[in-house]
Amino acid sequence: MTALIGIDWGTTSFRAWRMGQGGEVLETVSDGPGILAAGALPGGFRQVLTDSIGGWLGTAPIIASGMITSRNGWVETPYLPLPLDTATLTGSLTLHDGIHFVAGAVSDPDGPAPDVMRGEETEIIGHLAGGGGDGLFVLPGTHSKWAMARGGKLTAFRTVMTGEVFGALRDHTILGRLIQPGPGSEKAFRRGVEAGRQGGALLGRIFSARTLALMDRLASDQIADYLSGLLIGDEVAQGARDAGGPVTIIGRGDLAARYQAAFEVLGMAAQIAPPGMAQRGLWEIARTRGLT
Amino acid sequence: MTALIGIDWGTTSFRAWRMGQGGEVLETVSDGPGILAAGALPGGFRQVLTDSIGGWLGTAPIIASGMITSRNGWVETPYLPLPLDTATLTGSLTLHDGIHFVAGAVSDPDGPAPDVMRGEETEIIGHLAGGGGDGLFVLPGTHSKWAMARGGKLTAFRTVMTGEVFGALRDHTILGRLIQPGPGSEKAFRRGVEAGRQGGALLGRIFSARTLALMDRLASDQIADYLSGLLIGDEVAQGARDAGGPVTIIGRGDLAARYQAAFEVLGMAAQIAPPGMAQRGLWEIARTRGLT
Repeated sequence: MTALIGIDWGTTSFRAWRMGQGGEVLETVSDGPGILAAGALPGGFRQVLTDSIGGWLGTAPIIASGMITSRNGWVETPYLPLPLDTATLTGSLTLHDGIHFVAGAVSDPDGPAPDVMRGEETEIIGHLAGGGGDGLFVLPGTHSKWAMARGGKLTAFRTVMTGEVFGALRDHTILGRLIQPGPGSEKAFRRGVEAGRQGGALLGRIFSARTLALMDRLASDQIADYLSGLLIGDEVAQGARDAGGPVTIIGRGDLAARYQAAFEVLGMAAQIAPPGMAQRGLWEIARTRGLT
Repeated sequence: MTALIGIDWGTTSFRAWRMGQGGEVLETVSDGPGILAAGALPGGFRQVLTDSIGGWLGTAPIIASGMITSRNGWVETPYLPLPLDTATLTGSLTLHDGIHFVAGAVSDPDGPAPDVMRGEETEIIGHLAGGGGDGLFVLPGTHSKWAMARGGKLTAFRTVMTGEVFGALRDHTILGRLIQPGPGSEKAFRRGVEAGRQGGALLGRIFSARTLALMDRLASDQIADYLSGLLIGDEVAQGARDAGGPVTIIGRGDLAARYQAAFEVLGMAAQIAPPGMAQRGLWEIARTRGLT
């Protein structure tokens, strides 16, 4: 019997879970369109629900988080200030078209560098609810999120554009000219991390991806791994300064492993959270609200 | 009477001077094609000389510096190690097709971040020969060069890709989506410099160019100036750490003024060198060699 339908709906991804009465996952759909593609469909977001999880609809309450709650999503929910916990998120659900939409979070809204997130707050709540303790959280991606939890609350976070900037440097600057595709080199990546952790202007250090190749000291099929390591190394070295406790990476596959390797190069341990943090967070918020 | 013809020939620029017996400029041509465009012409580099300064040819020795001395130029000259001075450059001219080509410079060739320059060494030599003393030199551009001179020698330098990365961020990342062209805002630029000088990952701080705009705290026609200030602010704050004496900006127009303003925001004075450093450097090298 279905107790809850949870959706983590991002800019380019759609993942939905049908959950049982203990929050266990009965069924998963992970191949729906993200909000960019969905918003352009004739039937819009509603059509995606019918196409992707039509058989589930009407059987249980629906809760959704991610960029689907943004200005370009289904409905724009508020940004909640920090510190933020399950109770605050639970009390701020937006019911719209029969779906409970989770709020986003805002950091330093009136300061010089305000920041926002939508979706990652639910993943961190999922981790905390699952018995994971406080600490520093890294959610790698096109725009990585670095977040801090203290006393069971999300207390700070920052967005770092590492993934997107890597793509722009590779595809649209001189650094990409010598790059040849390769099988992936862990060694080149780690060498990049070492270069990334050094001091001095980042936009100076990245130039070594070109000079080392010009001097035949970096193979052309290793430049991309080196550059990726350099950017992640800078990000991790800067972000790790705030770590005063355990570090948890919330992410999947190769990218999570790369961040873990970068911490290792810096002499720090970081654990990769088990999968399912978003689903777990959605369950926790819905359960606390009494929806299940 | 012509004593020397000097050419500063870069990737996208061509400047030539006809000089008299005291090194004074008798005539200037500054609208020839850079080596990228020139290399693609049927008659190649020789054709450009005929078209641009044909009337000067045969009247005096020719000396050239810049990317024309690179692998993609007319002839590849060596990279000379640091420290480097007029005498070293003078002793390493490459005579090819009747032209004296200046050598490039290499920094830290066997270290983790080797770096190279072609052309800027001549400008710095020009500054030193003109009575400018030691200190820190900034040559802003697509790829900025930061160089140190001590005891009349070029002792260290580093390339920072600020200009090119600014273009890639503006044209190929989410930061550019909200940008509207504007009249240029000194205030937004200085605000960016303040954000750029702060600590933390640069690829995190740049995200404020989006969040401030999303929150209506930065006008869409000021985002580009803010982002430019942020990148230059980071570059200058990091580079200025090495400054133990006077700071000289070798460059022209708006870009040189922007770097000067960035130093000012950081509470430091930087002077802009008078124009003509490349021509002056070429003269000095040729004169020391006895070509004039």
